[in-house]
Amino acid sequence: MKHARFILEGREQFGIVEDGKIVASSGKVYEESDIDVWLAPFKPNKMIGLALNYADHADELGLEKPKEPVLFIKPNSSIVGHKAPVYYPDGATYMHYENELAVVIGKEGRNIKAADAMDYVKGYTIANDVTVRDFVNNMYRPPVRAKGHDTFGPMGPYFVDKEDIPDVNNIELRTYVNGELRQQGNTKDLIYNIEELIEFISSFMTLEPNDVIWTGTPKGISHVYPGDQVRLEIDYLGALENHILDGRTEEVEAGGADHAETKR
Amino acid sequence: MKHARFILEGREQFGIVEDGKIVASSGKVYEESDIDVWLAPFKPNKMIGLALNYADHADELGLEKPKEPVLFIKPNSSIVGHKAPVYYPDGATYMHYENELAVVIGKEGRNIKAADAMDYVKGYTIANDVTVRDFVNNMYRPPVRAKGHDTFGPMGPYFVDKEDIPDVNNIELRTYVNGELRQQGNTKDLIYNIEELIEFISSFMTLEPNDVIWTGTPKGISHVYPGDQVRLEIDYLGALENHILDGRTEEVEAGGADHAETKR
Repeated sequence: MKHARFILEGREQFGIVEDGKIVASSGKVYEESDIDVWLAPFKPNKMIGLALNYADHADELGLEKPKEPVLFIKPNSSIVGHKAPVYYPDGATYMHYENELAVVIGKEGRNIKAADAMDYVKGYTIANDVTVRDFVNNMYRPPVRAKGHDTFGPMGPYFVDKEDIPDVNNIELRTYVNGELRQQGNTKDLIYNIEELIEFISSFMTLEPNDVIWTGTPKGISHVYPGDQVRLEIDYLGALENHILDGRTEEVEAGGADHAETKR
Repeated sequence: MKHARFILEGREQFGIVEDGKIVASSGKVYEESDIDVWLAPFKPNKMIGLALNYADHADELGLEKPKEPVLFIKPNSSIVGHKAPVYYPDGATYMHYENELAVVIGKEGRNIKAADAMDYVKGYTIANDVTVRDFVNNMYRPPVRAKGHDTFGPMGPYFVDKEDIPDVNNIELRTYVNGELRQQGNTKDLIYNIEELIEFISSFMTLEPNDVIWTGTPKGISHVYPGDQVRLEIDYLGALENHILDGRTEEVEAGGADHAETKR
């Protein structure tokens, strides 16, 4: 079942999406196009990101495959929903989308074994781990400024129950920018698959309901600029669409940025 | 005013601490020694940590003073209260306390200027940014495994209103291990002071009520081991005490760890 959370008629509502229609918990039926604002399909607890979890993506960044999962925490204040703008910030040169399967935890656990891991998963959504690559620049490199900006965490459009996906370790991800296919991958190429990630993370950190694991992005990142439309598709999960808006408040110096002409 | 949150008579209670007595919101008066379990004095929203925010601490780690604040996110699942055990995990060799002034945000803000920053602060507490230094070891180094373990985030004992501290940029921090003074510093030596941190963080991330900024630790970290009692004092904020318990489940190989004899 696909679950959505949205603003309509001035208030937050929940609904089930069936055949392109939304059946709200009130019983009313809407078209997706009726929705005023899409929210992330649930309120996440903590969000755990993975860097470099597809070998071909590590290759494209010129980095070695990590010896253990490389984690970071995505701040909840970065979350937006389907159709929301993502702001291009001051000082950015290389903003990238990152199409990621997001795994949603359904019950509390610690020291979970890989063999039992799927018992702790309740479902999935699509996440865009928006990153300004040039902000990953200090020697400790915790990517808070690179990945933690307001609007850098689109999620949605739906939360999809795990029972709806026959084999989550073999589904395809596709990203389109302005209609052009730029990124394509498959979860079978995850370096650490979902079960292994849950075992690793829960070996030191309690996983709680509505924690979200952002499993990493495959090869195919590319630069996006204000005005671009970004569409992330994952099999069974629908399509998460967001557009880049210029959030720059500083003057862009002549010659200072390759794409100063996109400022509006 | 000092505010505490605790378990007593089987339920969560709130109280005001005055002259060593706790006046619960019920009106009942308790001794601190009556408390069964101290909780962190409030439920934090996101927690933003600072690496290398005292020059003498960067020196002792052999690292350069950073060119901008180096942030990480501390997961909420790591939080414990005053008197709680901190577990020494499998594979650790160098566990360190880090005594830090924790700044608690009182209202939502974005793009806050340093001159206005204190309007967004509601008070302070003591935080122990427990770190296993040897887990800071991969090239991206987001310190989730080093700093994010369950129990690695003691906070408390009290939340103290900002009005109670005449000059928060000039208060002393002291850490004792088994009664021995090991760390001493003063917030006047922060590389980025509270106002500057709020300006920097809010330039890209919305600060929300109960967000906490862990402002970094001064020089004086040292190794702690199972059995050690750690006491963090900060002027006006009281003393946060925690003890290290052995949480290792793996066999420690002979000669494998310097302090295998501390395993119990």
